[in-house]
Amino acid sequence: MYSFKNDYSDGGHPDIIRRLSDTAAEQTEGYGDDHYSRMAEALLKKHIGNQNVDIHFITGGTLTNLVAISAFLRPHEAVISAETGHIYVHETGSIEATGHKVFPLDSSDGKMKPDQVRAVVQEHHFEHMVKPKLLYISQSTELGTIYSLQELRDLRELCSELGLFLYLDGARLGSALASESNDLSLNDISDLCDAFYIGGTKSGALFGEALVICNDGLKDEFRYLMKQRGAIFAKGRLLSLQFIALFEDNLYMELGRHANRMADKLQTGVVEAGYDLKFHSSTNQIFPVLPEKTVAALEKKYQFYRWETMEDELIAIRLICSWTTEEKQVDQFVDDLIVFSY
Amino acid sequence: MYSFKNDYSDGGHPDIIRRLSDTAAEQTEGYGDDHYSRMAEALLKKHIGNQNVDIHFITGGTLTNLVAISAFLRPHEAVISAETGHIYVHETGSIEATGHKVFPLDSSDGKMKPDQVRAVVQEHHFEHMVKPKLLYISQSTELGTIYSLQELRDLRELCSELGLFLYLDGARLGSALASESNDLSLNDISDLCDAFYIGGTKSGALFGEALVICNDGLKDEFRYLMKQRGAIFAKGRLLSLQFIALFEDNLYMELGRHANRMADKLQTGVVEAGYDLKFHSSTNQIFPVLPEKTVAALEKKYQFYRWETMEDELIAIRLICSWTTEEKQVDQFVDDLIVFSY
Amino acid sequence: MYSFKNDYSDGGHPDIIRRLSDTAAEQTEGYGDDHYSRMAEALLKKHIGNQNVDIHFITGGTLTNLVAISAFLRPHEAVISAETGHIYVHETGSIEATGHKVFPLDSSDGKMKPDQVRAVVQEHHFEHMVKPKLLYISQSTELGTIYSLQELRDLRELCSELGLFLYLDGARLGSALASESNDLSLNDISDLCDAFYIGGTKSGALFGEALVICNDGLKDEFRYLMKQRGAIFAKGRLLSLQFIALFEDNLYMELGRHANRMADKLQTGVVEAGYDLKFHSSTNQIFPVLPEKTVAALEKKYQFYRWETMEDELIAIRLICSWTTEEKQVDQFVDDLIVFSY
Amino acid sequence: MYSFKNDYSDGGHPDIIRRLSDTAAEQTEGYGDDHYSRMAEALLKKHIGNQNVDIHFITGGTLTNLVAISAFLRPHEAVISAETGHIYVHETGSIEATGHKVFPLDSSDGKMKPDQVRAVVQEHHFEHMVKPKLLYISQSTELGTIYSLQELRDLRELCSELGLFLYLDGARLGSALASESNDLSLNDISDLCDAFYIGGTKSGALFGEALVICNDGLKDEFRYLMKQRGAIFAKGRLLSLQFIALFEDNLYMELGRHANRMADKLQTGVVEAGYDLKFHSSTNQIFPVLPEKTVAALEKKYQFYRWETMEDELIAIRLICSWTTEEKQVDQFVDDLIVFSY
Repeated sequence: MYSFKNDYSDGGHPDIIRRLSDTAAEQTEGYGDDHYSRMAEALLKKHIGNQNVDIHFITGGTLTNLVAISAFLRPHEAVISAETGHIYVHETGSIEATGHKVFPLDSSDGKMKPDQVRAVVQEHHFEHMVKPKLLYISQSTELGTIYSLQELRDLRELCSELGLFLYLDGARLGSALASESNDLSLNDISDLCDAFYIGGTKSGALFGEALVICNDGLKDEFRYLMKQRGAIFAKGRLLSLQFIALFEDNLYMELGRHANRMADKLQTGVVEAGYDLKFHSSTNQIFPVLPEKTVAALEKKYQFYRWETMEDELIAIRLICSWTTEEKQVDQFVDDLIVFSY
Repeated sequence: MYSFKNDYSDGGHPDIIRRLSDTAAEQTEGYGDDHYSRMAEALLKKHIGNQNVDIHFITGGTLTNLVAISAFLRPHEAVISAETGHIYVHETGSIEATGHKVFPLDSSDGKMKPDQVRAVVQEHHFEHMVKPKLLYISQSTELGTIYSLQELRDLRELCSELGLFLYLDGARLGSALASESNDLSLNDISDLCDAFYIGGTKSGALFGEALVICNDGLKDEFRYLMKQRGAIFAKGRLLSLQFIALFEDNLYMELGRHANRMADKLQTGVVEAGYDLKFHSSTNQIFPVLPEKTVAALEKKYQFYRWETMEDELIAIRLICSWTTEEKQVDQFVDDLIVFSY
Repeated sequence: MYSFKNDYSDGGHPDIIRRLSDTAAEQTEGYGDDHYSRMAEALLKKHIGNQNVDIHFITGGTLTNLVAISAFLRPHEAVISAETGHIYVHETGSIEATGHKVFPLDSSDGKMKPDQVRAVVQEHHFEHMVKPKLLYISQSTELGTIYSLQELRDLRELCSELGLFLYLDGARLGSALASESNDLSLNDISDLCDAFYIGGTKSGALFGEALVICNDGLKDEFRYLMKQRGAIFAKGRLLSLQFIALFEDNLYMELGRHANRMADKLQTGVVEAGYDLKFHSSTNQIFPVLPEKTVAALEKKYQFYRWETMEDELIAIRLICSWTTEEKQVDQFVDDLIVFSY
Repeated sequence: MYSFKNDYSDGGHPDIIRRLSDTAAEQTEGYGDDHYSRMAEALLKKHIGNQNVDIHFITGGTLTNLVAISAFLRPHEAVISAETGHIYVHETGSIEATGHKVFPLDSSDGKMKPDQVRAVVQEHHFEHMVKPKLLYISQSTELGTIYSLQELRDLRELCSELGLFLYLDGARLGSALASESNDLSLNDISDLCDAFYIGGTKSGALFGEALVICNDGLKDEFRYLMKQRGAIFAKGRLLSLQFIALFEDNLYMELGRHANRMADKLQTGVVEAGYDLKFHSSTNQIFPVLPEKTVAALEKKYQFYRWETMEDELIAIRLICSWTTEEKQVDQFVDDLIVFSY
């Protein structure tokens, strides 16, 4: 059964595995104190166009988020997130487990508006309430949408005014950067955010995320916090080698573009077949709205998530494409969709 | 410069990398809900000789320890560890960061005696003190020593009497099991411990540890705790595939034996060259005691840790061998040691 | 300036101070291991009509809530609360600081409906999300409303079905029990809740709350958890003596009735003066809706909270009465309200 | 049975109760935002001789310690304490429960030496270990000893050199200040420590400690941290009024002197009766070493702690005097000791 369920169903790009294989017999220092890690950092700084950032490689997104956010906040400080934010919904209270409240903001498209954020901060005005201190956004969001440069600038301006850190979860940053609608560069992100991460797991790597700390005030002694949460990887070079493979020849962008192109093809096919979308997406997640019986028929051949039960026996489903998605499977899905419509 | 500094200097065994490569294009469920994970669990249960255990794969030792220990304890319950225990010394207070006190017991050889444990529990008799609830041991210990079957039975008996959980950190369990002095099997360990982990990172894997929960009372909803701490790996099969490679054809024991044999050869060479050992070791870590000038000379050719500064300008150093340690380098080291002695 | 701002503006009932004075020279055991504490427990058990409860005295409400809730939950378990709940809004993230997520449910009147609770539990169905485990309610609520016996039974039934603990914050339980609309007894509450507290601070005591643990499974080693959070009071008898004073001759109910009668008189005056209420209240908090200019005029003579800015330049204010509220001040307020209306 | 068991067996000084009584009917703001709290702060600042400190009143010592220490530290930072320190032994892991490791240093008399502290800091040199950041001392110590001005200066100098905060637990600061051996003033303490607290509970108050934050860098938003831990007292003035009573006419010192004088009389009696002391004390705790049978006989008439079982059937007991200790009971104890010696 072919899967459009997520973008971490595969095992990792061949170039990445080859690099791990080629270097397997080498002895290096552990814990990221090796020359490959230095190379990977230099390479990412060059891509970001910013030498004044700290880069740390961590095995997964939840671990990256919890280490970073808990390192940046004092105990009474809280996080603001869209109610759809991964940390709010799907990380088992990992941020709260480090002691910090996460506020959910209403969001129909996974994004937040400056006015919403301002209202929350203004309501929290004294010591009987937590102090909002960090705005958590995802790019692309959990609903496949993306912030534009102007939108990110507006949030940055607001955060600066209100004394908030701006943190961007880039689990699917590859797809966002490769989107045809995107006008944000890594350099913009490093200018506008206090910290963000470049996701590897969902973009070709076996595993691994690159946390980028831009705000000087958040850099100090960060590796202590990583170690305390179990996030310093013994063979740190395994993470670095993967980011070298992804960024040395623009593989990261190529893989993102492929995923997006496949998703766009699916999305176009859905629309041409006469169905609605829950949101229009320019990234690798799409949300067709289909009749229950069509969904049931598709489920016999494909794996995907039922996202939301809507009125009139309609179901919004989520289809995700990745760098491994095969075009012939996309074509087949669209063909099947048309067949199953009758 | 050849390194005897640790057993995670390399990149991983070729068989393991091959398996990752061979399966890279396959689609599977994420988060360990895949058939390779089921296979790896079945294989380990067979090796352990115990079907009634739960097995969870986690990327590293610190993360495994903190997830497991914090999952097993109520907030007022504490851990007893040798003062040399990895969680007490070298995990940046990761257990305390989850809210639990760790008591250090004096230990000259990395091991604890039942009477020491009993004394701590008896002193902690009322609600103004924490309640000791988990005994943390390492096999092999941080000093290369190992518990015998009788010693582990004695600790188990004591733990049962006192209501303590017995948890075994198996970061170097491969070397311990392969030791010529060892009389403990995986089956014994699963009988005697409430939980333990089989370390992969230091025994041939790229990364990964297999946590084995033996006590039924500790199994419930454990994956929630893993997820909350960032310890559910997106592509869980990458962990499972490595353990399949390590256990399908006894690779795990072979690699452990090689490491031990190299360490023994080093240790014998040191003694024959006329030097003392801080402890006699039957595992892959040895602790020669050498004059300062000899140490300084060796440091020009080899990497290793200075462990302790002793009297009379003597230094105890730590040499670690692994499955990658080359016999000719061992021989060369012994030759150099003799040369540098003059 | 006379205050209707809250019910802890005063210093404590004379009977209570007298008891502290009368016993000041006595020597007793510390930490609540004294005969007054045993007396207070026996007295409360008699009033509750339930011998099978554990009673612990704690200095304040926030501390009581955080000790109890964090003692009852495993790390991945979460709390459900009305969005108006004190723990969600006004305790500076104290529950999250112990590691637990608190879910807010929409509520216009401070109460929750079984269907809302069921929906949250059903949405949280797997290990990538926290597990809802405790339902937090307040009686009276933060908006002055109360749950009826039938409503509490319905919540209990639901909690039993879903495996949730039911915890009742009784900061203002005195006013709730004394309400003319109330049909709930302490005995009902102890039957239906897993734990609750009888608030002293807002009901005549200098300070102090009596936590009542009804569920046997939650009783074990609770004092360890209290001590760890700084909630075992050195001179525990000071708490017990106050509860003896409050419950020996029904003082607790008398004071609650007075507060409610004063609030009712205010509320009736407001309505007779031609104004609306945000909610009708039968407890000691009322919420008149007044024109901005009237509010501004009243603020020159009285202290109270502006609760909410509404449409048409109307303001909902909160007036709180307590056992110390003077009837002549209530009458004066109503007179002034009429005067300030012109 | 007369008690020498501790210094919180009584109910509080009459002057204090009178003040609570006299002001009981007054309405004030809650949470310490009242004029009595401002008066108490001003009075303490005058006594300390330092206007540039922040003062917060908290109900008890464990709560004060845990709020302060957890507010001052980042997650990876740790505390150094004597192994006899109250936070290490008798607060049920309250500091660890906030996430911070506490290191025990050997101490025969409850005090620490600069060299010990320096050694611990030097050992902890990299991110795999916690970072020692706060030195916790008690004055008087848990063994009745006191630091001299010179000793405290030496510790301060060391802390400044090593980047440590110096925190002084003053649960028994009254007795320490009133000791005939003491050469430290409150002003010295505020000069030398980053924060400390002036204990009320054991020195005449019903309850309450005054935390004094001297280091400007530790003052910001401290009340958020208090509230989050349940340490903002609803009727804050009750704490303030007690400190006004203790400091307005030097009652605090008077009560300390009485306690010390009684302890000294006991100690002299013990020595004159021919017995040894475990330590010589100049404060309100003394540690006679008596034969088992004498101890057993005394236990029939008096309450006190058996502190340590020593060789030759000797027992070190702890006797504590307080402001309420009656001289005739002291005389009687000494008489009985002589009688029971035969």
